[in-house]
Amino acid sequence: MNEFEIIERFFNNPYKNKSDEVVLAIGDDAAIIDVPEKHQLLISTDTLVSGVHFPLETSPENIAYKSLAVNLSDMAAMGATPRWVSLSLTVPKYIEDWFIRFAKSFNSILEQYSLVLLGGDTTQGPLSITIQINGLIPKCLDKKTNALKREGAKPGDLIYVTGKLGGAAFALKSLLDKNEKSIFKNPSSWELERLNRPTARIKTGIYLRKIASSCIDISDGLFGDLSHILKASKVGAEIKLANIPYSESLLKLNNNLAIDLALNGGDDYELCFTLPKETKSSVIRKLNTICPVSNIGKINRNDSVITLRKEEGDQHLLKPSKSYLHFN
Amino acid sequence: MNEFEIIERFFNNPYKNKSDEVVLAIGDDAAIIDVPEKHQLLISTDTLVSGVHFPLETSPENIAYKSLAVNLSDMAAMGATPRWVSLSLTVPKYIEDWFIRFAKSFNSILEQYSLVLLGGDTTQGPLSITIQINGLIPKCLDKKTNALKREGAKPGDLIYVTGKLGGAAFALKSLLDKNEKSIFKNPSSWELERLNRPTARIKTGIYLRKIASSCIDISDGLFGDLSHILKASKVGAEIKLANIPYSESLLKLNNNLAIDLALNGGDDYELCFTLPKETKSSVIRKLNTICPVSNIGKINRNDSVITLRKEEGDQHLLKPSKSYLHFN
Repeated sequence: MNEFEIIERFFNNPYKNKSDEVVLAIGDDAAIIDVPEKHQLLISTDTLVSGVHFPLETSPENIAYKSLAVNLSDMAAMGATPRWVSLSLTVPKYIEDWFIRFAKSFNSILEQYSLVLLGGDTTQGPLSITIQINGLIPKCLDKKTNALKREGAKPGDLIYVTGKLGGAAFALKSLLDKNEKSIFKNPSSWELERLNRPTARIKTGIYLRKIASSCIDISDGLFGDLSHILKASKVGAEIKLANIPYSESLLKLNNNLAIDLALNGGDDYELCFTLPKETKSSVIRKLNTICPVSNIGKINRNDSVITLRKEEGDQHLLKPSKSYLHFN
Repeated sequence: MNEFEIIERFFNNPYKNKSDEVVLAIGDDAAIIDVPEKHQLLISTDTLVSGVHFPLETSPENIAYKSLAVNLSDMAAMGATPRWVSLSLTVPKYIEDWFIRFAKSFNSILEQYSLVLLGGDTTQGPLSITIQINGLIPKCLDKKTNALKREGAKPGDLIYVTGKLGGAAFALKSLLDKNEKSIFKNPSSWELERLNRPTARIKTGIYLRKIASSCIDISDGLFGDLSHILKASKVGAEIKLANIPYSESLLKLNNNLAIDLALNGGDDYELCFTLPKETKSSVIRKLNTICPVSNIGKINRNDSVITLRKEEGDQHLLKPSKSYLHFN
């Protein structure tokens, strides 16, 4: 089976003709798109490398799911509606069963999100998956864009996160730590799902479009990703540790370890966003019906510094250097 | 140096503010684009893997050049004007000198083609480069697209290629075959350049937009790529071997070897296209001022079959199975 046959057999998805916007998808040197009028185009790309971004033994279903989900999460963080993806798949060798399982999972997510696969590239080499995703946002007349950005948080804004934190990191540790006496045992099914098959917070992102002052998705850990908001917005943050929505398994750990996993764990793919302090409580209620959100602190003028507060009076400064960084 | 610092230091290109279309480039979860009205968007992606698509010892300058050039060539094949690129770079470790050289080469090509880097991803792993390229084509009123496609060649159409064929394949063999007595010795500087730093035929592609009936770029060898045109257009082809523009070093080889390299060599990144037989000679003259072109044969009704003709009377049928295919 050669690369053209692989693409034709596994990835010539039936959804490609469902979109008026896609004039030509798989099968030529490029895809052709009619971008709808009065919309802005959002473009993002993410690579997952075997052994770096997921354990070597990860199933093809979960690799497909996660590689799409991390890209969907980038669209969620911008408030965009995802529309089309390109797939660059590098695999060591052709194993039919692997492709069947990968493609089945991949195509089911395309259908779930009404995404069209535009094409891509299948090459031989060490396992890695690069997905490029395109999304749309309605244009606005009074400013350059409606998209959510890292820039825009103001002193006094309230800091929120969706879902719970640290669950994916706990699940990853439980998979990697084979020690019988490991303290990272028995992650919940929800925590394993956050690690392997995270649901991108697309609907929350779209609802936040005209409401949030800044937004980012938590891929490298709350600490590192909030730091990007602070740097881009030239502000600081005070976090109340008691308000962090710890994932359930973290409650079994000692306090410092739980805080470390929730702040630096990575792989959460939740959203971290800021709301002006005058945001109405009806907005928060609406947000909670889409996906539960927690107010974990507020923005201050303390340029790029995160202050952690255990209880009133106590405070603990952190430099933004602890999240998961490649090449460190 | 972490991935964010790498992107900021090496790839925060100065051209990002030169384009009104790019609302936001590097530095957020996605780039934001205002696609100009009355244009279609073209999207393509290609991955180069070290040791598969280029020899392990290839310089960072040439890797950067080639990874952009193969994507530019896809835009040329569609008749599109390339506008923006995303870069996903996976490298085994951080070596400052490698990044400096890669980025200098990469950024110089961005400038040469007035391209904007939208962002990307830097990860740790076995060396590979995935580039996603976006281009534009003016919309047309009377049909779905002005883009050049593989589909559209008609019996009687004349088959053309740009430039010369087999030079890159000869240069690659000369690099890989260390034998003193190798017949693949002393490639010309032009042939080495076609291998490492091919010039994409962007201007030819744009000129062909309303003229050619089909087009493809020759990345896997004339034979395999012409076969894609034949399959998509449901036609056959007769090639006159004497008319093929053999690269100069091929003239030193025996005839069959020269034909094999020119037809199956790969890495040429020339265009293969078809013109209606009534195309005016002034169009051919104009094409030759942009880049020399050669008429190598014509389209017939012989579904997906390529007939090779050495001289009048002689003919030799080939099945389309010989080009460079991954996983074969």
